[in-house]
Amino acid sequence: MRVGYIGLGIMGGGMARNLLKKGHAVTVWNRSAARTAPLHEAGATVAASPRALAAEAEVVCTCVSDPAALAAVSEGPEGFLAGLKAGTLVIDFSTVGPAAVQALATACQARGARFLAAPVTGSKGGAAAGTLLLMCGGPAETFAAAQPVLSAVGSKAILVGDVVQAAQMKLIGNLMLAHMLEGLSEGSALAAAAGIGLEKMLEVVQASGYASPFWEFKGKALAARDFSTNFSVDLMHKDLTLAMEVGQQRGVPLPGAAAIREVYQLARAQGLGEQDIAATAAVISPALAKR
Amino acid sequence: MRVGYIGLGIMGGGMARNLLKKGHAVTVWNRSAARTAPLHEAGATVAASPRALAAEAEVVCTCVSDPAALAAVSEGPEGFLAGLKAGTLVIDFSTVGPAAVQALATACQARGARFLAAPVTGSKGGAAAGTLLLMCGGPAETFAAAQPVLSAVGSKAILVGDVVQAAQMKLIGNLMLAHMLEGLSEGSALAAAAGIGLEKMLEVVQASGYASPFWEFKGKALAARDFSTNFSVDLMHKDLTLAMEVGQQRGVPLPGAAAIREVYQLARAQGLGEQDIAATAAVISPALAKR
Amino acid sequence: MRVGYIGLGIMGGGMARNLLKKGHAVTVWNRSAARTAPLHEAGATVAASPRALAAEAEVVCTCVSDPAALAAVSEGPEGFLAGLKAGTLVIDFSTVGPAAVQALATACQARGARFLAAPVTGSKGGAAAGTLLLMCGGPAETFAAAQPVLSAVGSKAILVGDVVQAAQMKLIGNLMLAHMLEGLSEGSALAAAAGIGLEKMLEVVQASGYASPFWEFKGKALAARDFSTNFSVDLMHKDLTLAMEVGQQRGVPLPGAAAIREVYQLARAQGLGEQDIAATAAVISPALAKR
Amino acid sequence: MRVGYIGLGIMGGGMARNLLKKGHAVTVWNRSAARTAPLHEAGATVAASPRALAAEAEVVCTCVSDPAALAAVSEGPEGFLAGLKAGTLVIDFSTVGPAAVQALATACQARGARFLAAPVTGSKGGAAAGTLLLMCGGPAETFAAAQPVLSAVGSKAILVGDVVQAAQMKLIGNLMLAHMLEGLSEGSALAAAAGIGLEKMLEVVQASGYASPFWEFKGKALAARDFSTNFSVDLMHKDLTLAMEVGQQRGVPLPGAAAIREVYQLARAQGLGEQDIAATAAVISPALAKR
Repeated sequence: MRVGYIGLGIMGGGMARNLLKKGHAVTVWNRSAARTAPLHEAGATVAASPRALAAEAEVVCTCVSDPAALAAVSEGPEGFLAGLKAGTLVIDFSTVGPAAVQALATACQARGARFLAAPVTGSKGGAAAGTLLLMCGGPAETFAAAQPVLSAVGSKAILVGDVVQAAQMKLIGNLMLAHMLEGLSEGSALAAAAGIGLEKMLEVVQASGYASPFWEFKGKALAARDFSTNFSVDLMHKDLTLAMEVGQQRGVPLPGAAAIREVYQLARAQGLGEQDIAATAAVISPALAKR
Repeated sequence: MRVGYIGLGIMGGGMARNLLKKGHAVTVWNRSAARTAPLHEAGATVAASPRALAAEAEVVCTCVSDPAALAAVSEGPEGFLAGLKAGTLVIDFSTVGPAAVQALATACQARGARFLAAPVTGSKGGAAAGTLLLMCGGPAETFAAAQPVLSAVGSKAILVGDVVQAAQMKLIGNLMLAHMLEGLSEGSALAAAAGIGLEKMLEVVQASGYASPFWEFKGKALAARDFSTNFSVDLMHKDLTLAMEVGQQRGVPLPGAAAIREVYQLARAQGLGEQDIAATAAVISPALAKR
Repeated sequence: MRVGYIGLGIMGGGMARNLLKKGHAVTVWNRSAARTAPLHEAGATVAASPRALAAEAEVVCTCVSDPAALAAVSEGPEGFLAGLKAGTLVIDFSTVGPAAVQALATACQARGARFLAAPVTGSKGGAAAGTLLLMCGGPAETFAAAQPVLSAVGSKAILVGDVVQAAQMKLIGNLMLAHMLEGLSEGSALAAAAGIGLEKMLEVVQASGYASPFWEFKGKALAARDFSTNFSVDLMHKDLTLAMEVGQQRGVPLPGAAAIREVYQLARAQGLGEQDIAATAAVISPALAKR
Repeated sequence: MRVGYIGLGIMGGGMARNLLKKGHAVTVWNRSAARTAPLHEAGATVAASPRALAAEAEVVCTCVSDPAALAAVSEGPEGFLAGLKAGTLVIDFSTVGPAAVQALATACQARGARFLAAPVTGSKGGAAAGTLLLMCGGPAETFAAAQPVLSAVGSKAILVGDVVQAAQMKLIGNLMLAHMLEGLSEGSALAAAAGIGLEKMLEVVQASGYASPFWEFKGKALAARDFSTNFSVDLMHKDLTLAMEVGQQRGVPLPGAAAIREVYQLARAQGLGEQDIAATAAVISPALAKR
């Protein structure tokens, strides 16, 4: 298929590359042009604008960091909506919250295009390997039509419901992840204070009924004080804020998430916003800070 | 081996039964005598007192709910310490926190006995099936000597360190579990508000990198509003309190656990203390309360 | 002066009445017309629309409950902006947060009008008595020009800075108030559990260095379980949410406010949203609930 | 009266001096002898031990920092209980929580002595000026008998109830104070981010219904980044911990205090434990840290 891909960050870059590998004809666009070069070398065409990209594509994919970035690539004279044709399939892989994704869906449908929300989860490594999890929202036929693209970038795609529900499911997943990480941080800080090695702690946890690949993945990073960014403090903070906005609107108290989000605020106030979420452990324990 | 077992609650009852199944000669004692009857039918001898039990045993096991209960069965003229002989192996399976277990270890050692802390984790079902996880603390030789008993009640025993470290590891594990459960509760409450079925939410979560058997186990209970007690609100509240005491003493801030413990306090104030920890979800969302 | 007053709720109704008492010619408008009748009896003219009100006024006052209500009375063909003349003085007494008040200020200035933000604090009784505190934002000359109106409704008006700063100061004040109320609730709940009468507790507090008229005012309401609405749970929840948005944008961690806002969410989830903020005490303690 | 005074810290030193000024015959004892010298110069006798002090006194006063210090001066062969005579009046000014003060009361009564709990509140300045507030607990006749001492050190003494209730009232008061200070910190951090001067913020707050001498006192210290110790982070952390223990035991959820105590833990983890409680503001905002 002729696929246009907008947004070549940590996740998007790997996903676009996998679309090429699976034989799709890929055209790319990125705000900072530097990131298009490696994709161009790998066989992608570089579009002059999101509008130009949309004019030639059967499928338009977007993967950007927040609502403002999504508005920037979709709206205005050079935005992709300006070039969008009836019948084109738009897939948004971003995590921008229900309001922004619903607004985009409505704008696409107004132009006769089909829309699928497909926020992704998984690490930088998962994006490179094509093993992401896709939480999809939209009509079942649109979900079916998107399979060639979805299967190229992820190992599993689940149709959660409509676009708003998919967006909320992504926020819910990240909220649960934030709880786990805070548990790991606080547990690791107590273990450090007790003279229990993090590896020993992880051995115990992984032998328990609450074992998880996440403990292994992030626990090892924490043990190595490796805060290189898979998922930044700033991005998780944004997602927790979006999740809490949903909670505020729907009347759902979130006392744990409320406490945890302020840990992310403390991390940001200490200049750790662009580091990996593992760096929040350093906020509560000097023993877990970078050595 | 001749094993004396004190404390036949949800966990202890199943563990004593497994000791019998593996061919040990088991003598039991329980504060309320009613619980000794089924063990007696299964082949156990019933002791007249903890003291009498200890006088005849090669191994004395304790499994009670809190420091006060541990003191009640160990101290005084009828406590097991009064009957304890030099060389006897004492194994405490309780979760009572570092101070209480260290005090008991010291008292045992003063009588020439060997002591192993072995707090357990796993559900009521795990206790019945003999698949508990044991977080052990004590000298390596004591850990080795305890293998016949440990392997009868659990599927894995890990030597964490000394008795205090084992006690702290148990609290750390439960603290991490409490974070996961709060994440599950808040995620489920948001899902309910968004019209996403809990089964769909669990399908997504279990396809992610933060999958865990715990989500399946407790998520299904929550979906069914089944709050029958595996691990009570009161007991988790006690463990979080013990973990936070360690944090206070060691200077470890625990902002997430602090917020979560108050959810348990709210549950207790609403009369839910003896229900399963899943009932804390009802505190934050009427949609998750028993129907 | 010819003063137009839009918004006759708990606060606005009393303020408009005081403008009449001080001899101003007052025209009023309210979304639900029922509330205009008592003002009409007291001598006010009733306008057909915000637009019509603005067309005749030297001063336009607004006092509504949230940004949506402010947009509803200011925008559109019948909104007051449509009737606003150059040189008119607009004073907004609402607590709507910095973004909404800045947007209104810009719209007014675009029409050549002068704008003063003047969010108010004080009880229903203070609105009736004309003893409110006004936290003003705008140019010094505009503040000076507004004195005849400000002195009619309040006993003190302080020029905080620009309109955004005045809006933020109001939110800051309410955030501090929310901390005090949570302190009063938690203190009262502990006192009730300890068998210390609330009156005795208040006697002690008022003899201390942290004495405050607020303890007396709200403590007596709490002691009487009188939750009749001076300041509703919903409105304080809105203000805390606006304050936390400022914190999120400016990078200010607010761990105490984060915990407290979820108490308001719990109160709302329990159906207490329209009651007085004192009702949040009932969330943490059944002993403080209405008898 | 012949008054023995044990514990000459920030508060105790000033109080003993005021007893001398009012004409009492004062004997003092302090763990570190250096602090007795200025009192000796002012006319006090220095006792060789708490036991010796008690043997000669009509009234024994204690003012120490925590339960361990209280045990150290009261128990053992040189503790004051060993020298205590029947009929002597013991007044404890410490803030040690209900359990410790009840234990001491019981020990005193067992020796035929009378006991009054009288935890104090007020600043270092208040101790020097004799204007402390005393929250008393004990029999009415004991309270009456203590008046000559109470009136020498404080400007107001209130009989709250029994010794446990007085101890709890002190903790309740400090909990309310901690809420106020957190409100001041968070408000000040938002004001700093908004470019509103702290003096302007305090002017507004002091004109409101939630005005308090505390805002003036601590707000000025915060504005000056003056963290010299009136009430240390460590001591408030201890008092919040004691208050929360009461909450845990009595089933009172304290979600605000729980969040705030962790701010104190963060301050302690950052090495600010001995600074004034105002230093907790620096934890949430670099703008409020010492310049």
